[in-house]
Amino acid sequence: MEYVLMKNHIINRDEAYINFDDRGYYFGDGIYEVIRIYNGSPFLWEEHFDRFLRSAEELDIVLPQSLNKIKQNILTLITKNNVINGTVYLQMTRGEQERNHLYNRDITPVITAFTKEGGVPVHQQKHGISLWSLEDIRWLRCDIKTINLLGNVMSKRKAEDMGSQEALLHRGHIVTEGSSSNVFIVKNGTLYTHPANHYILNGITRLYVEQLADNEHIPLQKEAFTTEDAQQADEMFVTSTSLEIVPVTKVQGTIRSDFPIGPVTRKLQHAFEKSKTM
Amino acid sequence: MEYVLMKNHIINRDEAYINFDDRGYYFGDGIYEVIRIYNGSPFLWEEHFDRFLRSAEELDIVLPQSLNKIKQNILTLITKNNVINGTVYLQMTRGEQERNHLYNRDITPVITAFTKEGGVPVHQQKHGISLWSLEDIRWLRCDIKTINLLGNVMSKRKAEDMGSQEALLHRGHIVTEGSSSNVFIVKNGTLYTHPANHYILNGITRLYVEQLADNEHIPLQKEAFTTEDAQQADEMFVTSTSLEIVPVTKVQGTIRSDFPIGPVTRKLQHAFEKSKTM
Repeated sequence: MEYVLMKNHIINRDEAYINFDDRGYYFGDGIYEVIRIYNGSPFLWEEHFDRFLRSAEELDIVLPQSLNKIKQNILTLITKNNVINGTVYLQMTRGEQERNHLYNRDITPVITAFTKEGGVPVHQQKHGISLWSLEDIRWLRCDIKTINLLGNVMSKRKAEDMGSQEALLHRGHIVTEGSSSNVFIVKNGTLYTHPANHYILNGITRLYVEQLADNEHIPLQKEAFTTEDAQQADEMFVTSTSLEIVPVTKVQGTIRSDFPIGPVTRKLQHAFEKSKTM
Repeated sequence: MEYVLMKNHIINRDEAYINFDDRGYYFGDGIYEVIRIYNGSPFLWEEHFDRFLRSAEELDIVLPQSLNKIKQNILTLITKNNVINGTVYLQMTRGEQERNHLYNRDITPVITAFTKEGGVPVHQQKHGISLWSLEDIRWLRCDIKTINLLGNVMSKRKAEDMGSQEALLHRGHIVTEGSSSNVFIVKNGTLYTHPANHYILNGITRLYVEQLADNEHIPLQKEAFTTEDAQQADEMFVTSTSLEIVPVTKVQGTIRSDFPIGPVTRKLQHAFEKSKTM
């Protein structure tokens, strides 16, 4: 039997339903996190919850219970579902209220969570993926991990339809990120990635790669790079909780380029692999 | 007893629940319409469904049943709930699917609808409202009536917190629209409103006011106007399905101005009132 978290209860998935008046369903009014589980242990646990709290704060949503209680529930869920390698998805919507753009501050946020079994995409990590590049049309608070994800969803579908595995978004001539990943390029041995501001989601794996690069003495510039820079890069890779570090071998669409899977990407993948099993 | 539409069934509201895996809940992946009911009859019915179809098309969602069947279900719902004056809310999400940014094209969209009793905001129509002006940070496909509404939700809450009843959004120095309404100004007897492009939702009431202005021989320019123009306008009003035509008497925030409730606004309100009871 598979369990999910519904508010404060761990219940059978088949019995989990969402209230008709949940603001998540009317407005996409909520936030989420996806956390990796390796060998039964959640990875970068505190970092994900720090971001979760920040997202809540930015959207003026107050936790309906202590963070410790939420963490406890998630850990119980992982245990009950006996997840060894996989992910846990945690969502919090603002709560249930008769439909109205104007939210009330006295409603109770709705927390839900589910787990998913599954390892990392080993084939993609080894052989790389291709990206489809297109204009980033999302809102200007991409730093908040909300469930208003239509811009991401539409660009992911477009990428897939064009034979790629992920989108490469650029706002004008500035490369921002993927539809569900952060993007790095390597030029002359230096790593470049978009700075963490309102234009991108500050990925937990992105932050972790920062640390790994530091440990490996790879210089990292957190500065915006252009579509032209991307085209002329020596290496490119994307990062996310689900992908870890995946090399990019080809970009099509508005930008066109091919990349080898280079030594910096491989070094960081190796460091990631080593660190997560420590 | 109150009924709602859930997929193809009209059921008791207390028994209406949303599936845990509905993409509307994970991604805000869906569209909606709100239609007025006057004296038991839906108003501008065809216009709303035309836009509904356009939104679906833009998001690559194919209706799960004929449009006629959907219309029939909505009419039945209005009758069963015995709505004389009120609104009907219609939503369609892409469907139920294990969470994945990448949507499948073979899932069945989920149609839901509910009705709400209630007249028009007579006091606001008579005495006007105040707006809180702030930067428009929404995505660049505001022309699609999606349920990705966090930008609208947050600006509505901000407006209310600042003692106003609606937000006035501007992208840079160009005024776009309200958080759930379109904005018109009057200058030297001419009406101005933002053209229907990707930056605004082309309101059905906005379109109707175009017709009314034409009938009343009031010149209308569908061209973008600036925050400066707004500040110096002779009159300002907002339109929406819920509000009809409501005068604006004050703007605060990034723009500051006071307006009388002028003759053009009153003429259009009068024409609207007359037309809807014909």
